[in-house]
Amino acid sequence: MIIALSGGVGGAKLALGLAQLLPAEELCIVANTGDDFEHFGLTVCPDIDTLTYTLAGLDNRQLGWGRQDESWAFMETLGTLGGEDWFRLGDRDLALHVLRSHRLRAGESLSAITDDIRTRLQIGPRLLPMSDDPVRTRLLTDEGWMDFQPWFVGRRAAPAVRRIDFTGAAAARPQGALLAALAARPRAVVICPSNPFISIGPILALPGLRDAIRASGAPVIAVSPIIAGQAVKGPTAKMFADAGAAPSAASVAAHYGDLLDGLVLEAGDLTPDIAPRCFPARTLMTTQEDKIALARIVLAAAEALR
Amino acid sequence: MIIALSGGVGGAKLALGLAQLLPAEELCIVANTGDDFEHFGLTVCPDIDTLTYTLAGLDNRQLGWGRQDESWAFMETLGTLGGEDWFRLGDRDLALHVLRSHRLRAGESLSAITDDIRTRLQIGPRLLPMSDDPVRTRLLTDEGWMDFQPWFVGRRAAPAVRRIDFTGAAAARPQGALLAALAARPRAVVICPSNPFISIGPILALPGLRDAIRASGAPVIAVSPIIAGQAVKGPTAKMFADAGAAPSAASVAAHYGDLLDGLVLEAGDLTPDIAPRCFPARTLMTTQEDKIALARIVLAAAEALR
Repeated sequence: MIIALSGGVGGAKLALGLAQLLPAEELCIVANTGDDFEHFGLTVCPDIDTLTYTLAGLDNRQLGWGRQDESWAFMETLGTLGGEDWFRLGDRDLALHVLRSHRLRAGESLSAITDDIRTRLQIGPRLLPMSDDPVRTRLLTDEGWMDFQPWFVGRRAAPAVRRIDFTGAAAARPQGALLAALAARPRAVVICPSNPFISIGPILALPGLRDAIRASGAPVIAVSPIIAGQAVKGPTAKMFADAGAAPSAASVAAHYGDLLDGLVLEAGDLTPDIAPRCFPARTLMTTQEDKIALARIVLAAAEALR
Repeated sequence: MIIALSGGVGGAKLALGLAQLLPAEELCIVANTGDDFEHFGLTVCPDIDTLTYTLAGLDNRQLGWGRQDESWAFMETLGTLGGEDWFRLGDRDLALHVLRSHRLRAGESLSAITDDIRTRLQIGPRLLPMSDDPVRTRLLTDEGWMDFQPWFVGRRAAPAVRRIDFTGAAAARPQGALLAALAARPRAVVICPSNPFISIGPILALPGLRDAIRASGAPVIAVSPIIAGQAVKGPTAKMFADAGAAPSAASVAAHYGDLLDGLVLEAGDLTPDIAPRCFPARTLMTTQEDKIALARIVLAAAEALR
């Protein structure tokens, strides 16, 4: 079993590559839920949704987020009725939020709902929310504490981040199926090329999870989300700078510290100060072939580190 | 002030006619809320919505319900995710349900939300939910007790009705602004051509409302929803038959009993056994002109009965 820890877009691309190479029962994808939020009374889970749509082949490649064949009649009408429109909910995307919110209120777990939707959309590998207990990422910025989505989407991640809090994490239980997978001698734990602070950070903040990863005996391999000092998408580079570190593969390795056994990184980003074993690769994933090629290198790195 | 008690489609047509003839401050439209229900955690208020869309000129005339320029991406996607699809929610219509449900959960009253949306859609006359307290119509049918929408939409009103219960009505307070309008010497109370059992019935079941109507001193004028033994839309005729009465204007008059001072009815439906004063008219409202012409007759009847 390969266990992949993932945030949204970048992580989902590698997860798709891994899903193309591995039998479904040998891949378990773990989604960050720190970005989840309640909007108009709907529970929106951006990373679960991006993973779901990407793995089902329903992701919107034009926009780079959301669903294919999307329309915006709901959003347009909401505006005319005085509803906030800073977070855009497409008509098709909304079906998932409405259905999930309703089932959550009826007492079903996030993992059961996610798994049911995965099955209906004929996604092979398991897709696990990191926890069924709510964790909400909050940021202390130059403008004070902000919830994640108002900062990320509402303010386009502009206010500098001074501190990050994963509210609820201390009391959240890591997903049971994740702990079971870790206990069953996985081949590797892959940290996808997602934002280390706000996509992988909440997962690693779950009580006992770092220890469970170490105890699994599996090699831990991260894929650097930084290429030549920049992030492909999102505020990763900026957040390293806010934290006083250069946005580089070396900073990614230093951030994860002794958790990492290997780092897959862009060849040009290789520097002598990186502690874990390095595996140079082309890490920019544009085409389906790119995703599969990178996944192949990650799996080879896992073999090399066993 | 004219106070119009209304259900959905037929009532909304007459309300629109009245709105064309009266200054906005002289018309108060009262909506049945017995049809309201919770669907996917959203509070749907079919009669308020039909009145809102009709008065705003946004009603879907092709379908005969819902909103103009409607699309169905949400509904279609919901089906693929395993959501129930017996009650159709359009993408634009959904904006109203999501916004209202969110504001209700935040503690706003149904009347405040309805009034805000009315204002945003530039509707002139007041539009009042009959009560801010939930009332839910339930029906004892040949197949047992059923909630309103599963019977009306889900089963197309097929199971014969033996008894009707307005759950919550006994504890519901009539809308304060309605009681105030009744106390302020209204020119007339108009019972729109809506289903007497399930559209007007819940309104009249509110504690003290019949007395307040009588005490207002205003003439009460109903418009018959039955034309030549048939209802224009919906199960009105069938429900008279279920109740052991002929579907006729005379049965409408008998149903309302001594509450009525006048009945506007199709000329051909005039029979000698109708107790209140009769005002023959063309009651089928197809065009905008039909709605205005019928409203004119209703207002003339009100004058005649003062």
